[in-house]
Amino acid sequence: MIDQPREPSALIAVVGGAQCSPAEAALAEAVGRLVAEQGLGIVCGGRGGVMAAVCRGAVQAGGLTVGLLPGDDPAEANPWVQVVIPTGLGEARNALVARAGVAMIAIGGSHGTLSEMALALKWGKRVASLRSWELPGVYKAETPEDAVSYILDSSVNS
Amino acid sequence: MIDQPREPSALIAVVGGAQCSPAEAALAEAVGRLVAEQGLGIVCGGRGGVMAAVCRGAVQAGGLTVGLLPGDDPAEANPWVQVVIPTGLGEARNALVARAGVAMIAIGGSHGTLSEMALALKWGKRVASLRSWELPGVYKAETPEDAVSYILDSSVNS
Amino acid sequence: MIDQPREPSALIAVVGGAQCSPAEAALAEAVGRLVAEQGLGIVCGGRGGVMAAVCRGAVQAGGLTVGLLPGDDPAEANPWVQVVIPTGLGEARNALVARAGVAMIAIGGSHGTLSEMALALKWGKRVASLRSWELPGVYKAETPEDAVSYILDSSVNS
Amino acid sequence: MIDQPREPSALIAVVGGAQCSPAEAALAEAVGRLVAEQGLGIVCGGRGGVMAAVCRGAVQAGGLTVGLLPGDDPAEANPWVQVVIPTGLGEARNALVARAGVAMIAIGGSHGTLSEMALALKWGKRVASLRSWELPGVYKAETPEDAVSYILDSSVNS
Repeated sequence: MIDQPREPSALIAVVGGAQCSPAEAALAEAVGRLVAEQGLGIVCGGRGGVMAAVCRGAVQAGGLTVGLLPGDDPAEANPWVQVVIPTGLGEARNALVARAGVAMIAIGGSHGTLSEMALALKWGKRVASLRSWELPGVYKAETPEDAVSYILDSSVNS
Repeated sequence: MIDQPREPSALIAVVGGAQCSPAEAALAEAVGRLVAEQGLGIVCGGRGGVMAAVCRGAVQAGGLTVGLLPGDDPAEANPWVQVVIPTGLGEARNALVARAGVAMIAIGGSHGTLSEMALALKWGKRVASLRSWELPGVYKAETPEDAVSYILDSSVNS
Repeated sequence: MIDQPREPSALIAVVGGAQCSPAEAALAEAVGRLVAEQGLGIVCGGRGGVMAAVCRGAVQAGGLTVGLLPGDDPAEANPWVQVVIPTGLGEARNALVARAGVAMIAIGGSHGTLSEMALALKWGKRVASLRSWELPGVYKAETPEDAVSYILDSSVNS
Repeated sequence: MIDQPREPSALIAVVGGAQCSPAEAALAEAVGRLVAEQGLGIVCGGRGGVMAAVCRGAVQAGGLTVGLLPGDDPAEANPWVQVVIPTGLGEARNALVARAGVAMIAIGGSHGTLSEMALALKWGKRVASLRSWELPGVYKAETPEDAVSYILDSSVNS
């Protein structure tokens, strides 16, 4: 019998479009794999596009994936989400995704993604951008490895 | 006895920092007055800085002011908020401010303001920026009159 | 020019079913009128049934009505809501209704209404029940006058 | 390499007081263990009392535990929560707990617990009560085994 708590899973928020290009999907899948290989989990919006690709990459590497859905139907989750939280909050759940990660990687995406990056910055978290919005304070990453390396520093130090 | 509904108040979302410079406060107060003179109400985050100044301007011109507070204590509202909604949702209430306005004017501000502008754009609303973030799709206004004139078009047409 | 803040509108939360019987609608309309005659506003979920009837009664008596909608479409509001806040939060907006009132009157309703009464009790607010749930700490009112009289004490004292 | 999705974890919502008696804690711990032995996860509010006890029981039996915190500080979670989601939504997060479970077990608790039971009933989920609120539609369980047996039927059938 185990009578001591496990360490909670540190989660990295990954944000991006619910629809994405094949190139963005490949980036997201690589990010998911790299994050999982570091023993970290993924938290995302739980839907398609970048969210599905990052979860797929993480699951393939044995990682944990958490999806905070905007709607109230768990079936909206992509099939690589292991912990499905149907929030029913609509876009207000973007704030939960930004809050739940110790750091954030943005891949592509549009205005919803920007709102998540803005909140992560507001809360003092490291944010890396892979072909996504460029803002003061956001690290422009060239590769998945570069993005993960940048945000890992924050996970370790914070 | 009145037995017919009144027209609901169309609300303009005004966003910006909870602390602001005197110049930003003057802009916000002018925006509040101009919006009220058009018969429109203000919805904002209900706190200080830009939010207090815009409410003050609106009340002085006989307008309606609604404040969606992040916390759960109505006493956090600035004294020019007439309808106080203490959401208790933290920053997730930013989504409600963006949603409640038919259009948005941003004045100064930082990352919280950016998150609100991003959501308003996502939902297809007109957004004017007065010394605030400049983004594709956001109208860079030179004066309060310019900002109000721009977003009024959207209120009328939408 | 007015250079002093107005007193914010104290709001009474009125909760009940989105569909209701004619008897419940009559009770709700009377509650709305009585609350308005005391110079207080109504906050509710903004939809039909009890919510529409209480807003109708309040508007007829010159009162203010605020509707916190579960969805994101302002057009879902009943026509007697003057300040429409489309939260997009689904049932999580029940917590906002309970929070926004200084006290609560429940009329009929089912489990959604019960969730709102429970939160108002949790936050130490007076709750009157008119043909609604009976719980420890809830005042069982016989008439609209009785319900409003009970919760007015709390508005004055709190 | 695994190239197929895992089945998402079905979660049982367990609700109750943030402070509880030793007897309630023993019930909660037994519930956590029994749920985990069925291969199901726990979702709860992530704090102390019943929430800590149910997570402890689940972790000891190898189960998954998810905590949806009211605040925004992950450190508020009890040490047996493995997936920490700091929602920052205050009591509005109660709706998320009720939504995230396929069924609910309530143990002791007060008005916050009642609000969660009401929402679960509203959404048609099975709710078992162990020394908690008794409502129409809620199953009054005598033992942890009884409670888990009742709600398992719903997990299987829904």
